[in-house]
Amino acid sequence: MKTAILDMDIVGLAGLIRSRKLSPVTLVEALLDRIAAIDPELQSFIHVSGTALKQAGKAEEMLRQGKAIGPLHGIPIAIKDNYLTRDMPTTAGTTAPGYDFPLRDASAVKRLRDAGAIPIGKTRTHEFAWGNITPPTKNPWDFGRIPGGSSGGSGAAVAARLCPAGLGSDTGGSIRIPASLCGVVGLKPTFGRISRDGIVPHSWSLDHAGPLTRSVRDAALLLNVMAGYDPNDTACQDRPVPDYLALLGQPIAGMKIGVCRNHFFGANEPDVESAVERAIGELARLGAQIVELRIDHLEYGLGAIFAIELASSSAYHDQALQSGATAGMTDDVRTLVEIGRMVSASDMIKAEQLRAVLMQNFFKAFEKVDVILTPALPLTAWEAGQTEIDVTSRKESPLEASWRLTYPFNLTGMPAISVPCGFDRRDLPIGLQLAAKPFDEATLLRVAHAYEAINRWGDRMPPLRKIDRAVLPAGAEHV
Amino acid sequence: MKTAILDMDIVGLAGLIRSRKLSPVTLVEALLDRIAAIDPELQSFIHVSGTALKQAGKAEEMLRQGKAIGPLHGIPIAIKDNYLTRDMPTTAGTTAPGYDFPLRDASAVKRLRDAGAIPIGKTRTHEFAWGNITPPTKNPWDFGRIPGGSSGGSGAAVAARLCPAGLGSDTGGSIRIPASLCGVVGLKPTFGRISRDGIVPHSWSLDHAGPLTRSVRDAALLLNVMAGYDPNDTACQDRPVPDYLALLGQPIAGMKIGVCRNHFFGANEPDVESAVERAIGELARLGAQIVELRIDHLEYGLGAIFAIELASSSAYHDQALQSGATAGMTDDVRTLVEIGRMVSASDMIKAEQLRAVLMQNFFKAFEKVDVILTPALPLTAWEAGQTEIDVTSRKESPLEASWRLTYPFNLTGMPAISVPCGFDRRDLPIGLQLAAKPFDEATLLRVAHAYEAINRWGDRMPPLRKIDRAVLPAGAEHV
Repeated sequence: MKTAILDMDIVGLAGLIRSRKLSPVTLVEALLDRIAAIDPELQSFIHVSGTALKQAGKAEEMLRQGKAIGPLHGIPIAIKDNYLTRDMPTTAGTTAPGYDFPLRDASAVKRLRDAGAIPIGKTRTHEFAWGNITPPTKNPWDFGRIPGGSSGGSGAAVAARLCPAGLGSDTGGSIRIPASLCGVVGLKPTFGRISRDGIVPHSWSLDHAGPLTRSVRDAALLLNVMAGYDPNDTACQDRPVPDYLALLGQPIAGMKIGVCRNHFFGANEPDVESAVERAIGELARLGAQIVELRIDHLEYGLGAIFAIELASSSAYHDQALQSGATAGMTDDVRTLVEIGRMVSASDMIKAEQLRAVLMQNFFKAFEKVDVILTPALPLTAWEAGQTEIDVTSRKESPLEASWRLTYPFNLTGMPAISVPCGFDRRDLPIGLQLAAKPFDEATLLRVAHAYEAINRWGDRMPPLRKIDRAVLPAGAEHV
Repeated sequence: MKTAILDMDIVGLAGLIRSRKLSPVTLVEALLDRIAAIDPELQSFIHVSGTALKQAGKAEEMLRQGKAIGPLHGIPIAIKDNYLTRDMPTTAGTTAPGYDFPLRDASAVKRLRDAGAIPIGKTRTHEFAWGNITPPTKNPWDFGRIPGGSSGGSGAAVAARLCPAGLGSDTGGSIRIPASLCGVVGLKPTFGRISRDGIVPHSWSLDHAGPLTRSVRDAALLLNVMAGYDPNDTACQDRPVPDYLALLGQPIAGMKIGVCRNHFFGANEPDVESAVERAIGELARLGAQIVELRIDHLEYGLGAIFAIELASSSAYHDQALQSGATAGMTDDVRTLVEIGRMVSASDMIKAEQLRAVLMQNFFKAFEKVDVILTPALPLTAWEAGQTEIDVTSRKESPLEASWRLTYPFNLTGMPAISVPCGFDRRDLPIGLQLAAKPFDEATLLRVAHAYEAINRWGDRMPPLRKIDRAVLPAGAEHV
């Protein structure tokens, strides 16, 4: 039983719980046991709830009494450590002095609890969500590699079956990057779809909340619960929330899938490109119409998002910059926060103007297609300590290379998802990214679900150990 | 006849023209004669149209043929020299090298022409709309004083009866300030109501287009013509345009007029405060309900708008800053454009966050009242060359003092109007400011019109000469 339930997704588990075939206590016990066994090495959690078992007992008691239950009744969910929680401390991954993270629930956490979920622990984030490697968390597919970030703890924990789902936040790719590198599903909804109230800010106009899950249907279910208006997040929009889960499963025949050949293709690892090309072929065989298209000016986007993100981060960390508390940050993050002060407001205005141009270009593209399909990242998980990436004609930093394909949907606020779409020759997962027009998560999830239904790449179990590449046969091909 | 038509507003003139009692040729001739007589000293025009008479002849010919005419058929209108025009050069008030202002019509100018108007000339603007004094233009009430700015040319020309209306642009008060200081009506509509396409940018998120007129009904008529969607201004909103002119004249009994006692009162010249208090009393006697209210955090607004305006200006002038062409600007403007480079993006983000807070505070206030009433400026026209203003406990620059009451409605984008409400002891006009919630210009104009109907302060003719204060009796009171 224990192994079986660890392999299940939330929709499956919730069905067993509702029908009294599985006790929330059994489920939480199994997860806590597995966390205790694996996480000392994996290091995906920074805090494990001391009351999760008690909460599971209460959930069990409610079931016994036949009390009305929410769609997540008794489901343990891991919370990224930049979401405030009323019963667990929040650190946002920092030990710098002067930050005060109160004990209260972020809006999204409160919605999960109201739906019956049990926050089982806080997962590690790259400090202040400012990075893509999330030390000291390891990648479950190879402990010598990084899990991605900044929601690296949630990505690693979900992939390693330490929890059925985890929350993430995504400013330039921080949900989709660890999802892709760890082989799970990561959904960044439309800007304004989920409240960020109670999430430690990184960059107000780019930050998004969203889930990392084992399946697309779980992403739909968690979006059902987390989406909706909240006046405490001024960017949050008051729009109806459809039942994303119910809308899954319709055939995708006749849908138009855009493939943007500029920017998103031609500078990726060969195994990534071939996995994505195979996915395009499979979607075409399901009856989708593949439409090649071009989106102009994306070559200027990275500078624009960097300017906005750096400046916002410095604005949030203003007091720490003035008091010198930034000295307590990790060097990589401290440098970024300090550099942010150098961004001029006039450059930022130009960055915002470019953002408006790119939004118009994407809107025009979405007049022609229902979704846009790209690789999630140009590469698979890189080695801890690696400082150069070599997938284009010039060497790049891992930061630059890793968010090149995800950030356009932060800059434009459009919803995007990463779904596992294969493995490279080193057995590292590859992510397929799908994006849609604002507030059209239903279409996005429908295509992702159709793809997942014929390709359950996420079912494979990661080895949870360091892989010695020397023992692999030369040129071994697993794709 | 000539004197009579010079004293009339557009609605009056258009009626005479439509009924063939006045020829557009007669009207244009009268204005050109008056410009030739007065403007060499007043200096409100930088360019007078060489084809206005010919256009008037054409308008006359159309009338003779009974051809369909627009609401402004044959009406001469002055165009601020930062609006592009297809038949007159544009300078934006600068002689700095490297700027290329093409011969084409700004969207608002095209709408005026389509409605039958005749652009009679280009009125002077403070260089790049960056200032409140508009040299060398004089104030028609006292040639030793400034007309305000940046739309100082239009304000002086309309007050001096050189044209029945002029266009202005308003980034922190640049329509309402010269309107108030010259004794005419100045309307800054909601952000996004009138397209800024073809207007030389000053600060994209603060710039507004609007008219300066002899009456509130003329402001309504020109808004009818100028308002509406234009995809060439990305901020311009696609919303229906009501018939503002038809909506005037309803009684204001029962309407709620908010008086915000903080920020807007207590640091104004005594004659300004007493004129505005008298206006409040008069509106109450018309049956309006006066509601005292408070709007928090306005004390931080000036820093916020300054940061945004400086930074935007530097972004627009980026090439001039890089090439050194800013050396060709007037010292006051050059300094501001160069200082703008020093604004950090993180400070700008904080400024934008304060803007959002102030917008919420004003929205809350407009849940309780229909309009907010304030003085337009803390003072009346100051002397040319004056560098200090002394209306509060500390001395201020004229720039700081003069836009303190107008800028909140640029920062929040809400519509505001200045209407003449009396004269100070030196016979200088005083302006009353009314503001309303976004896209509620109809209510704004209705209250302004009701006030104007009992107080035709704008009918008084300015002396058009330098006033020697020594000959005035001591303490002479004209209020």
